[in-house]
Amino acid sequence: MSKLFFRYGAMNSGKSTALLQVAHNYEERDQSVILVKPAVDTKGKTNVVSRLGVSRQVDILLGPSENLREAVAIKQTRHTDTGKPIACVLIDEAQFLTPAQVDQALEVAIYLNLPVIAYGLRTDFRTQSFPGSQRLLEVAHTLEEMKTICRCGRKAIFNARLTDSGKTKEGSQVMIDEGTVRYEAQCAECYLA
Amino acid sequence: MSKLFFRYGAMNSGKSTALLQVAHNYEERDQSVILVKPAVDTKGKTNVVSRLGVSRQVDILLGPSENLREAVAIKQTRHTDTGKPIACVLIDEAQFLTPAQVDQALEVAIYLNLPVIAYGLRTDFRTQSFPGSQRLLEVAHTLEEMKTICRCGRKAIFNARLTDSGKTKEGSQVMIDEGTVRYEAQCAECYLA
Amino acid sequence: MSKLFFRYGAMNSGKSTALLQVAHNYEERDQSVILVKPAVDTKGKTNVVSRLGVSRQVDILLGPSENLREAVAIKQTRHTDTGKPIACVLIDEAQFLTPAQVDQALEVAIYLNLPVIAYGLRTDFRTQSFPGSQRLLEVAHTLEEMKTICRCGRKAIFNARLTDSGKTKEGSQVMIDEGTVRYEAQCAECYLA
Amino acid sequence: MSKLFFRYGAMNSGKSTALLQVAHNYEERDQSVILVKPAVDTKGKTNVVSRLGVSRQVDILLGPSENLREAVAIKQTRHTDTGKPIACVLIDEAQFLTPAQVDQALEVAIYLNLPVIAYGLRTDFRTQSFPGSQRLLEVAHTLEEMKTICRCGRKAIFNARLTDSGKTKEGSQVMIDEGTVRYEAQCAECYLA
Repeated sequence: MSKLFFRYGAMNSGKSTALLQVAHNYEERDQSVILVKPAVDTKGKTNVVSRLGVSRQVDILLGPSENLREAVAIKQTRHTDTGKPIACVLIDEAQFLTPAQVDQALEVAIYLNLPVIAYGLRTDFRTQSFPGSQRLLEVAHTLEEMKTICRCGRKAIFNARLTDSGKTKEGSQVMIDEGTVRYEAQCAECYLA
Repeated sequence: MSKLFFRYGAMNSGKSTALLQVAHNYEERDQSVILVKPAVDTKGKTNVVSRLGVSRQVDILLGPSENLREAVAIKQTRHTDTGKPIACVLIDEAQFLTPAQVDQALEVAIYLNLPVIAYGLRTDFRTQSFPGSQRLLEVAHTLEEMKTICRCGRKAIFNARLTDSGKTKEGSQVMIDEGTVRYEAQCAECYLA
Repeated sequence: MSKLFFRYGAMNSGKSTALLQVAHNYEERDQSVILVKPAVDTKGKTNVVSRLGVSRQVDILLGPSENLREAVAIKQTRHTDTGKPIACVLIDEAQFLTPAQVDQALEVAIYLNLPVIAYGLRTDFRTQSFPGSQRLLEVAHTLEEMKTICRCGRKAIFNARLTDSGKTKEGSQVMIDEGTVRYEAQCAECYLA
Repeated sequence: MSKLFFRYGAMNSGKSTALLQVAHNYEERDQSVILVKPAVDTKGKTNVVSRLGVSRQVDILLGPSENLREAVAIKQTRHTDTGKPIACVLIDEAQFLTPAQVDQALEVAIYLNLPVIAYGLRTDFRTQSFPGSQRLLEVAHTLEEMKTICRCGRKAIFNARLTDSGKTKEGSQVMIDEGTVRYEAQCAECYLA
């Protein structure tokens, strides 16, 4: 039986870089991975993009009503044919999975015997978990923190939404970075200040 | 600034024993701790009880509408008078805190500068988090797993509710162990079987 | 294949209590454990003793020239006869193992397929590792810290040797607590002061 | 007071990538870091090189008789002049530090109040720690594992040295990858086989 890992971290903690590194590690040994990204995340389109400058196309762009276990099972069958067996499933922006898809990720680990490593945010700009991250926090075999630092030097655990007029706690949960809105990882004290 | 820790684990992972050990460690150095338990947990009445046979009375039996930060602040003032400063707040059965009380626990760490260590279950018998554990998973500075094992030898992550007629996924979220209901920590595979 | 865990911590971090709790957890499920202690540790004689007041006799009091793997294999055979299979090997004061015995502990995990959990100090009163802990730090599958706090409130990582005339960095590596010598877990800053 | 972190992992666990990501994270916030590499590591010359394709010049190429604390203090003074304060010291290939330099790294954390993150191998191709990693395992405030996988799918913890004629346990401790020698991260079972 394999495991479902949730590697959570605040904005800019290096989650996509870490994911791409893990993919690289498997492939150096002639094993394949499946890269998954929820379609809700439109940043980078069909790519996983790391701020270090590395980028790569996903294998499954998962719509909110699609079944992750079935999508992986199909890929698994095809890859077995090519002789490069799939060794791992890597999910970027996993906070955007639906709770049902997280349960399917657990099933991939248990019934398809593939380790699943889900990278994502723990909470939104109001310190509430996303539906996907809440379910991952409940059922992942292992919770591993990706650390990053606040401007003040402490460990950042929250994500502040910043607009031209300062920090805001208003608006919809999902609002991808763009001209007028950006995010900053902050420690609890700076966030609450 | 101090931190809020959530040490989560399945049933019987030794959470209360660990809590009592930490209390003992502080007191060996002539520092005081505050033991807190949500009043909802009627097992052991006003005591923290460890299955290893150690037991101890709580300092704050916290009703669901009480404010944890205020309750701690009052104790902190009193203890300072006695010359044995309070060095830590320890919370047993922390899954039974209300979300507002978890936010107050974070404030105790940040504004009263006392480390808060909350021990509790991650999820209930249906793999859903309790309101208190959901909030702790969102805002704790550090998530630390207390490990225990399933009957099959794997790490247990879920809690099955067992009755005389077997495993059940029916009933209210809180149902303290008694004659006809008991709980068993299980791995994901045994739980889903 | 099972794993070798090294749960290291400074003096008084609750290592023996945690060990006894794990033993209790297995036995609640009708599984047996093997308790091991190096004979070099004469404190508590043939018992594992926790400062919380719990105590229990060891199954193997391991002399420095004995082979841990062979000693465990003999116990494993006997227990299988009684119908209560051994599920885990627990080692107290593991810093006193010889490096060869640590390699044997790894073999127990790999070849006898028994998880081995070794509890011990990371370093001595001069911040040098013991021969057993050095080898455990090198080969354990997983290093897990048992935390405790310094008098100043920071995490303790070192062990100061105190005599009637203050802190000393002189003397032999092993000197069990007695009238004139005692130990205190300290943070790096207090230790170096 | 800041902390000394040892992020250890087997070959190809993504240590240099993680280091470069951390550097990037600080710089996005207009803070500076100091990159250090022991001069013994001649691979990549004066650069930290990640297998993902990212590379960057070090700030201090540390000879074996140089004092790390002094070298950092000089850089710290200079940077303060430029208005971009140094927020972190990052060390690549930290297994090649001398034990004295590790003690100096601890002093940088304590007395210069700069977090020091040391990335390195835990052990050599014979499962013996390097002098630098042995000392880091003894004195680091926090030990954090960088995980990677063995060809067989288990977690890799050892580093096998491979030549054209197979695995070898002969030769000097330091032998940088070249035509005839290469390394592979392996789990304990594959390593011992």
